[in-house]
Amino acid sequence: MPTYKAPLRDVRFLMNDVLDYPAHFKTLSNGELADADTVDMILEGAADLCENVLAPLYQSGDDEGCHFDNGTVTTPKGYKEAYDQYVQGGWQGLSYPEEFGGQGLPMSLNLIKSEMMGTANWSFTMYPGLSAGCMNTILQFGTDEQKNTYMPNLTLGTWSGTMCLTEPQCGTDLGQVKTRAEPQADGTYKLFGTKIFISAGEHDLTENIIHIVLARLPDAPKGTKGISLFIVPKFFINEDGSVGERNPVFCGSIEHKMGIKASATAVLNFDGATGYLIGKVHEGLHAMFTFMNTARIGTAVEGVAHAELSFQGALPYAKERMSMRALSGKKDPEKVADAIIHHADVRRMLLTQKAVAEGGRAMIYHAAQLADKMTDNLLKGDQAGHDYWDDKLGFFTPILKGFLTELGLEASNLGIQVYGGHGYIKEWGMEQIVRDARISTLYEGTTGVQALDLLGRKVLLSSKGKVVRDYTAEILKFCSRHARNKQMRRFVWDLTKVCAQWNTLTIRLMLTARKDRDIVSSASVDYLMYSGYAMMAYFWAQMAAVALEKIENGGTEVPEFYQAKVQVAEFYFDRLLPRASGHAEALVSPSRTLTQLAPEHFSFDY
Amino acid sequence: MPTYKAPLRDVRFLMNDVLDYPAHFKTLSNGELADADTVDMILEGAADLCENVLAPLYQSGDDEGCHFDNGTVTTPKGYKEAYDQYVQGGWQGLSYPEEFGGQGLPMSLNLIKSEMMGTANWSFTMYPGLSAGCMNTILQFGTDEQKNTYMPNLTLGTWSGTMCLTEPQCGTDLGQVKTRAEPQADGTYKLFGTKIFISAGEHDLTENIIHIVLARLPDAPKGTKGISLFIVPKFFINEDGSVGERNPVFCGSIEHKMGIKASATAVLNFDGATGYLIGKVHEGLHAMFTFMNTARIGTAVEGVAHAELSFQGALPYAKERMSMRALSGKKDPEKVADAIIHHADVRRMLLTQKAVAEGGRAMIYHAAQLADKMTDNLLKGDQAGHDYWDDKLGFFTPILKGFLTELGLEASNLGIQVYGGHGYIKEWGMEQIVRDARISTLYEGTTGVQALDLLGRKVLLSSKGKVVRDYTAEILKFCSRHARNKQMRRFVWDLTKVCAQWNTLTIRLMLTARKDRDIVSSASVDYLMYSGYAMMAYFWAQMAAVALEKIENGGTEVPEFYQAKVQVAEFYFDRLLPRASGHAEALVSPSRTLTQLAPEHFSFDY
Repeated sequence: MPTYKAPLRDVRFLMNDVLDYPAHFKTLSNGELADADTVDMILEGAADLCENVLAPLYQSGDDEGCHFDNGTVTTPKGYKEAYDQYVQGGWQGLSYPEEFGGQGLPMSLNLIKSEMMGTANWSFTMYPGLSAGCMNTILQFGTDEQKNTYMPNLTLGTWSGTMCLTEPQCGTDLGQVKTRAEPQADGTYKLFGTKIFISAGEHDLTENIIHIVLARLPDAPKGTKGISLFIVPKFFINEDGSVGERNPVFCGSIEHKMGIKASATAVLNFDGATGYLIGKVHEGLHAMFTFMNTARIGTAVEGVAHAELSFQGALPYAKERMSMRALSGKKDPEKVADAIIHHADVRRMLLTQKAVAEGGRAMIYHAAQLADKMTDNLLKGDQAGHDYWDDKLGFFTPILKGFLTELGLEASNLGIQVYGGHGYIKEWGMEQIVRDARISTLYEGTTGVQALDLLGRKVLLSSKGKVVRDYTAEILKFCSRHARNKQMRRFVWDLTKVCAQWNTLTIRLMLTARKDRDIVSSASVDYLMYSGYAMMAYFWAQMAAVALEKIENGGTEVPEFYQAKVQVAEFYFDRLLPRASGHAEALVSPSRTLTQLAPEHFSFDY
Repeated sequence: MPTYKAPLRDVRFLMNDVLDYPAHFKTLSNGELADADTVDMILEGAADLCENVLAPLYQSGDDEGCHFDNGTVTTPKGYKEAYDQYVQGGWQGLSYPEEFGGQGLPMSLNLIKSEMMGTANWSFTMYPGLSAGCMNTILQFGTDEQKNTYMPNLTLGTWSGTMCLTEPQCGTDLGQVKTRAEPQADGTYKLFGTKIFISAGEHDLTENIIHIVLARLPDAPKGTKGISLFIVPKFFINEDGSVGERNPVFCGSIEHKMGIKASATAVLNFDGATGYLIGKVHEGLHAMFTFMNTARIGTAVEGVAHAELSFQGALPYAKERMSMRALSGKKDPEKVADAIIHHADVRRMLLTQKAVAEGGRAMIYHAAQLADKMTDNLLKGDQAGHDYWDDKLGFFTPILKGFLTELGLEASNLGIQVYGGHGYIKEWGMEQIVRDARISTLYEGTTGVQALDLLGRKVLLSSKGKVVRDYTAEILKFCSRHARNKQMRRFVWDLTKVCAQWNTLTIRLMLTARKDRDIVSSASVDYLMYSGYAMMAYFWAQMAAVALEKIENGGTEVPEFYQAKVQVAEFYFDRLLPRASGHAEALVSPSRTLTQLAPEHFSFDY
């Protein structure tokens, strides 16, 4: 049974040795707040909360699930108390402005905190996670009055928030949104419609819930350009800021899901609920897209979280469970059999989990630095600066969301596999991780949506391949810096080949797409996966380079710690990077193979 | 929501056109029983049972699960009635000897029946499936008295059977079995011990349950060579054949599992239960291995079943759900958006499911012919003939079990993915398929165990690579037969390359293994997956060849039916076969990358 332990040594290796967070913080206007002591306090405080408050509720929350009774939703036993501790610790305001009661720290620290929380208990973490989406929207698009009305309690966490986008007929294709917003004489709106899949849409953790809702004005143009954004509080707010009358937005039911059962997924019926326009009329979707990068990276974290948790569950079992003898000879001669960690194939599974968790974490922590710069420019009122970094981040976002969640799901499945038949039994806790992880490739844009965003928009349409040329140029610079280091040679060599291939594939698709538009969709997921393997290789090479340097010159850790990083990097290059070849072969095949079969010929029997 | 429809046109294409079952049946001593009319009656009768009796209980059985109350297990509502219909239809005796009340048909027909049943309702199918294991054991190793005592009611289905192997401390490593069998003065034994994970170990479907139990005699040698096999009936059998007193084998609990919840998985406590030795003392494991091929192919079916069912669920949704526009232009211009089946990436997912289901089915039906020949020799008393075909089959078994269940799980996950967020919701029925499918790579030997069996035993140890040389020689013969057919050229070319690479990889591993024993374990799963992709390519090429011939010369189906086979074959070669490259690259990497990390260095944080 996995019992979460925050991997603080790995976290510090990344923050201090690989990505130089101390130097990074110095480049931010709020960076001086993130001094070494504060960061330490946050890491250790978060670890304590996660290990001792959130992790113990992980399995019980799944067993019990959320309860729905006539519009009311009750979270599982202990969740309310845990949430109160979260609020009391001031965790929700970590990276939100001090003027609303937050601590004003860089948002990367919030992401690092939420990775720990998400690993300890993903379902729990979704409640504050959705609030963040709502808070970001109000901060960026709200009037001063709206900010003053909602932000203090949201920052405190005594209120929570949601994002109400999906409707029964549409999720990805939000142009189909039907929810109506009828203007009222007093400048407010009355909303009518049904939203589904609303995470944290109804629950008992907070005294109010602030919904951010996509809806259409009566005169709105059709499609994506006619959608506006509204703030719809569950309870009206009195003049004095206290919670008042109920607004008619009601929870019709909660979904019975494969996993994340402690997270309430609500159907919300807007029966003439009062809403307040936020941002410009008809520009609601545009506003939503503003947060796409951070929201998607927040979901990419789930890939890391579930790989990590599943690894934490599998490792002790692999050390304890005795079965058969290793092919190269007895490893535990005094025992009835060898521990399964001595079997090469079990190691392959554990190392895959570990390579995904640590490689993915490095990718996330790197993206968090870009997000910090983006946010910092916004705080400084530099929109162009914000857009520059938003654009930078935009290349990483679909890769992180698509690739890391797919690999997180695989890694979680390997956690079951290490346990053999026991992995299939609920009490061991390993199958829950897979059920929880399964949502990650679906929400916040499916893998297919991420892949189209990457190849169609980011790589081909907006940049004609330049993002890949730029990124591989950065990798090649790294390669030439390390080319003369004998221990780095195999990483440098493989990375060089990958960079060449990545560009070649991109150019080939660009040329093909001129005649064959379907190639973009048909190649997209393989292209995304290829890009993910290539990118993760670069991060593992960076970790290996730093580790080798520390072995030579000494670091804060024991040499074995650094040696292990080099060995996992070798594993990654030997055993996971080769998968890129299969994706490369598949993605260049003609789209015709996918498009030629007529819909009615997919089956002749049914 | 998937509503199962038996794919009889696909089944007949395989049986009649691709694998020439009518000619195959003529080679068997009981083959004349399987005339065209009988086969039709069986296919249509099975389809009716599956579509109208078993499929409707699929979701309700998952929702309700099995109930345990003080040693008694109740199956979900409707299961008892469905089982009674199964018994009344004479389905259990289909391929069992007429002398015990069966119909004496070739066992391939039983496998074809059980694929349909398993697709309609895998949990249900496990009850009769486990009986088959018990029946095969008694038929092959029982005395005449034992056969006469147990076989008639087992053949009828009014009694069921189990295989009791696993114990808490061991599953794969059965040498660790501890259950004791103490000899009694009357020639019987008293069994003491606990067995876990006993499928169909306790339930309310039959009036008696006959357990086949692995246990140790007091004087038994340690390890695998000291295990004997016992028949332990739940109720003793009276002189007149009726069910008598309760034997003290009790169900201690049933497991709470990720899926197959309508299948009872029992903990069985043997508290001095009376057992009857079957087969020779200390040779119980050897007896078990006799059925390994058929048992594992029976589990390989699960890969096909869940790919098929998930495809059947995903296809209509993909035709109905409207979202966005295809990149190459509007496909449903009159609608608000295009049906998602027009998106190339959705097609990639559907075609993957279809290629796995149909390619896997071809592999299973082919293996079933080998199994027929094996069984036929046994019936004729030709042990050498039996062993010859058993050995032939032994090459296919681990590939089918390992590869098809891994791909079945992937295909089921794609079924969720086609549905987007809705796939995660229980009521749509898609997530259940994944939960049910997840067991398939674990029981009856994990993928890792299959891979070691394939590479370690079948390819390297027993045959020094000859099985691969022989099999690729057969493929190359097929290639030269079709080399001059322009439409077959790309299949022929890719297959030729794969054959060369498969042999090269095998020789390379053979040479490496002389110095590096761990390479066998470290390369094994990638080698298994490589072999699976190669083998499935051959079956798709065979289907394409037959389909092309029918398009030219006419067949029983419409030309579009055959055209679709060719198009799916092209999809397979373009999009799935390339994965073999990644496996090929990974498997030749040195085992050191897997073995070098010390167990205590897998984590420094926990």
